[in-house]
Order: sequence, then structure tokens, then C-alpha cells
Amino acid sequence: MMKMLSNEETRTLFRSAKVARLGCIVNGEPYVVPINCQLEDNYLYSHSLPGLKISGMRENPSACVQVDEIQSDLHWRSAIAFGRFEEITKQNERTEVLGKLLRNFPMLTPVESAIAVDGAAPEVVVFKIRIDRLTGIAEG
Amino acid sequence: MMKMLSNEETRTLFRSAKVARLGCIVNGEPYVVPINCQLEDNYLYSHSLPGLKISGMRENPSACVQVDEIQSDLHWRSAIAFGRFEEITKQNERTEVLGKLLRNFPMLTPVESAIAVDGAAPEVVVFKIRIDRLTGIAEG
Repeated sequence: MMKMLSNEETRTLFRSAKVARLGCIVNGEPYVVPINCQLEDNYLYSHSLPGLKISGMRENPSACVQVDEIQSDLHWRSAIAFGRFEEITKQNERTEVLGKLLRNFPMLTPVESAIAVDGAAPEVVVFKIRIDRLTGIAEG
Repeated sequence: MMKMLSNEETRTLFRSAKVARLGCIVNGEPYVVPINCQLEDNYLYSHSLPGLKISGMRENPSACVQVDEIQSDLHWRSAIAFGRFEEITKQNERTEVLGKLLRNFPMLTPVESAIAVDGAAPEVVVFKIRIDRLTGIAEG
């Protein structure tokens, strides 16, 4: 039987997810990509090199972030956060957020490699999704 | 280093993925949910109980289906199919598609339970995404 997750269960799922999928609208069409992100209060923090998702969300800030924990078709949880993209441009906030993200996701990806070369390489986009609503469901 | 996947590598990733994430637009906002789907020729086949994604795609058929294989932040593949939602309403095509999906995803979920009770319960929505373009990238 499916059941709704409580707000706290939904937030726990977001905190434990190693990877999330970000949905946004690019040129009027849906676009989904995996991202690393970190939930704190009412925001999901993340960073990226410039690309389709960033240009899409700069134009249309509506975003949806989905995480799940799938043991089998009979035992899974899925949660969705709906919100708005907000770019973080102030240097001190960029540095603080990047520091947190790097501590949580220490493995170097191309994005982190770029950051590692220069503490806050200007081409790295740091952003947050301000959460308007959170929902979660579970099966099994 | 990131590299583009070939069309064949991208199709292989879709075929081996146990779960995909479907992105669509609901009430003008992006919406992402996990789905099971099956690639055949130029279509991704799936099914669902009625709900937000179905009502959203009936209104705006643009869809994006994303799959990935993530071993670590340093070794992963991700692929995206962009396409259009097409509902399958002819009884013989519904039965054929549901049969294939159930063979590939034999574990019963609530959707499959509904189907199991009635070979093609009318409330089950059977649909395909006609693929306009496929892209895939890999790291590591």
C-alpha cells in the first residue's frame, strides 16, 4: 500500500539521498538531470558548470527536485521538492555554500575539479532552490 | 573526463536501467517522477494509474526521460530522451504493451496489481514517449 510520507520523513529522504534529479524547463520543454544537492532549512543548495539547466532556470526559475530510495518495486520511497531557482552571487555566500557542498560530496567531479583549481572559480554557478512545497510517498 | 555516449551506448543504458525518471510539465511547472519504461525502436513504453503526470502530459505532451548508472561521482553515465507523450488507447495495442511491460517488470506494484485483477483494467493508462532525440554522457 502506498502512503504519504510526513514532512520529517520527506526531509530525511532528501538528506540521505546521494543523488537527486533536477527537473526544469528549457526552451519550453522539460529537462531532467542528476545533481548533488544539500537540504538546509527551506533550501536545496547545489552548484554546476554553466549549461542547459542553468540557462533554462535563469529564464524560468521553476524547478522540481526528486529523490528516491528504491529497494525493489515493492519497497521504495520517493520525494519531490517544488521550488524556485535562485542564483548565489555574493562571494561570501558562494564560498560558504561551496565549502559545505565539498565537505558533503568530497569526490571530485569535473565541477569540483574546476573549483579545486580556484577556490571559487567564477564560471561555477552556485545556486539554491527555495522550496515552496515538499511531498513524499512510500510503498511497502 | 566527460565524453558523449554514442547512440548505441545511450540506447544500451536505457535498456539496462531498472528505473527511469520522467520529467514533464504540470500546470506550467516541471514535475519529475520515477517510472519503469521500456525502449523499443523509437519509443519508450510505460503505464501508470491516472495522476499528475498523466493529466500534465495530456495537456502538454513534451516529456523527458532520464536514466543513469552511477557507480561513484567519478564513474557514471547519464542519458536523456526528449519526446512526446502519446496515449495508447486501442485495446490490442494496450494488451500487447502491458504484456511486455509485465514480463520485464514482473514485481507487482500497485499499478500492476490493478492490472493483474483485470487483464487491462480501464483505469490503467498505457502510453509511449515518441523519442525526438537522445543524448548520453559519461564520466570516468
